[in-house]
Amino acid sequence: MAGKTMPELHLGLEGIYFAESSICKVDGTKGRLYYRGYSIGELAGYSDFEEVSYLLLHGELPTRSQLIAFRRRMRAERTLPNKIIGIIEEESVRSHPMHVLLTAVAALAAYDKEADVASPRANMEKSIRLISKAGSIVAAIGRLRSGKQYVRPDARLGHAENMLYMMNGTRPSSNAARLLDLMMVLHAEHSSNASTFSTIVTGATLSDLYSAVASGIATLKGPLHGGADERALQMLRDIKRPENTERYIDEALQNKRRVMGFGHRVYKTYDPRARIIRKILLDLSLESGEVKNLAQIALRAEKLMIERLGRSKGIWPNVDFFTGPVYVHIGIIPALFTPMFAASRMPGWCAHMLEYWEHSRLIRPLEYYTGQAGRRYVPLGRR
Amino acid sequence: MAGKTMPELHLGLEGIYFAESSICKVDGTKGRLYYRGYSIGELAGYSDFEEVSYLLLHGELPTRSQLIAFRRRMRAERTLPNKIIGIIEEESVRSHPMHVLLTAVAALAAYDKEADVASPRANMEKSIRLISKAGSIVAAIGRLRSGKQYVRPDARLGHAENMLYMMNGTRPSSNAARLLDLMMVLHAEHSSNASTFSTIVTGATLSDLYSAVASGIATLKGPLHGGADERALQMLRDIKRPENTERYIDEALQNKRRVMGFGHRVYKTYDPRARIIRKILLDLSLESGEVKNLAQIALRAEKLMIERLGRSKGIWPNVDFFTGPVYVHIGIIPALFTPMFAASRMPGWCAHMLEYWEHSRLIRPLEYYTGQAGRRYVPLGRR
Repeated sequence: MAGKTMPELHLGLEGIYFAESSICKVDGTKGRLYYRGYSIGELAGYSDFEEVSYLLLHGELPTRSQLIAFRRRMRAERTLPNKIIGIIEEESVRSHPMHVLLTAVAALAAYDKEADVASPRANMEKSIRLISKAGSIVAAIGRLRSGKQYVRPDARLGHAENMLYMMNGTRPSSNAARLLDLMMVLHAEHSSNASTFSTIVTGATLSDLYSAVASGIATLKGPLHGGADERALQMLRDIKRPENTERYIDEALQNKRRVMGFGHRVYKTYDPRARIIRKILLDLSLESGEVKNLAQIALRAEKLMIERLGRSKGIWPNVDFFTGPVYVHIGIIPALFTPMFAASRMPGWCAHMLEYWEHSRLIRPLEYYTGQAGRRYVPLGRR
Repeated sequence: MAGKTMPELHLGLEGIYFAESSICKVDGTKGRLYYRGYSIGELAGYSDFEEVSYLLLHGELPTRSQLIAFRRRMRAERTLPNKIIGIIEEESVRSHPMHVLLTAVAALAAYDKEADVASPRANMEKSIRLISKAGSIVAAIGRLRSGKQYVRPDARLGHAENMLYMMNGTRPSSNAARLLDLMMVLHAEHSSNASTFSTIVTGATLSDLYSAVASGIATLKGPLHGGADERALQMLRDIKRPENTERYIDEALQNKRRVMGFGHRVYKTYDPRARIIRKILLDLSLESGEVKNLAQIALRAEKLMIERLGRSKGIWPNVDFFTGPVYVHIGIIPALFTPMFAASRMPGWCAHMLEYWEHSRLIRPLEYYTGQAGRRYVPLGRR
């Protein structure tokens, strides 16, 4: 390596722009998030997951007739082939739910005649299929992993409402359906985070949409990514009672243990999604039982963390911090948190892939070689 | 966006270094390739796939006793759970073989008690399992997709030899086994190409090894990546006879049609792997039947392309150009080319993941937002 200057290393690709996109704007300084130009606050307040999926895929809010047609298409695609139900049944009792989701989505390609058709029309159709069926798969994993019977989707229900129905076998309250729908809107898209980037890296070889989103699912599984909300909830449960919060947090900070759900690669201020969920937690803190307890602990921990680290170090609550208590309230078990995130992010993954394929380019960065050079092979007898 | 300067865009991340690595050196200017410091020429001449897998995973050539122990471990891991054989049987008759491989590898995690154990020891064990079982899965896909009975692995045979045995139900000739082994050595590793990079992006969220290599498989499926050799063979077959070669190539160049198997993101000279396979083609061009024909067409096309584009534009044959005729000679059908590539690259994917996890860092680049900002939500009734 003598005489060779080392190139600049961009570890984690932090700060590197790899593409243009008109899907999502994350303003990490001001703490703002826009899907296709619409603020997450307005979408959370007025829209729902089906409409947001349309918006992400098409770039525009649908007209009334477009929305009716889109909902009809989405709802018609909820059914799962029997073989896929069989795979979920077989795998979900023994495997990580994200492995089951990955297996089921990969296997699903076999039942789509257009799986390997690469036209924009076919890719839009496949996006609708994937968004719709991902909801059914996740609901089925939740149900079948505890040995219960598969529940067929009900096309009269909204997307989130149907997922709760398929999970529990009974129609959810309108409040639970609305809350899950809101959570799915908040998780639907977030520019080129690790799983979306992985989806694009896969699709950029002109691999198909099933393979691309499979890559996204595999990436979302990581505890640094999709797994964070599950671990944040575990922390709230470990704290046990609101009055323990201060001692727990201070001990964690003193021992430099990571407090889950705080800090973000992009947001250097309050995550706007966390701000929306925080309002729900204020309501939940007035309820009873475990949810009340968790909400109160979360709100106390948030206040303490902001005092200790927020303004001084730019470490603020992120979306993962508050989601756990809401999911507990809706009746979603922690093992399903990341699959829920995947089902919610499916429109984002698909929208990015549709966009990237318009001007696709292979993604192939470099590694800087630090190993030995020019070693001579030594025959086995002389080793 | 007024007043904001556009950041530098690194489309395709070309020329960007995202990590250090001591696994593979690709010298694109001199046309040299080293695994762990050993030149691909020496490894192709003296080593085999099992030893090269050890070298990639451990960084050193094994001693005799280490090699014996490694071969024993690899061979003991070849068996597939019955449920996985069932999935391959069910899917391979209807789905793209890469989708089947993806499904099977994802499902395999359910049968590994250490699937989600992240220790270096567990990850090394899982690497051996994955390298070994990937060979069995690919062989089983080749066999079961034509409706034949599954053939159990034979632990007395070498890795490539056993794959041919599981595919055909009869022991291969030593020549066929040696050629497939050589092809697998040549494909075992190639620094951070798209599939390896995708594997690392997935693993960098601290997702598990099954999920990480699943991402690699999904990415390798793309025709710009793993699918290139299949398309290069199709071109040779389209040319039909050696004497048609010149007309075909010149027409393709005139009409700016891409000639498959030429040009490479990193090599700006002769791909050293192509150089090794070219020697085999010289032998095959003296055989008879289709293989002789394909080898002769390939050698003519290579000569023409180098004359037309090699020195002037830096477009040289890459590894994908010559592999097809060799696979045809061994009896591997085109639909299995990419799965074969995946089974060969498994040690490279695993080695990169083991290395990256030593100093892991989330990979999260940015997109430059070019869409609208601050649109106001319009209620459905007013759209």
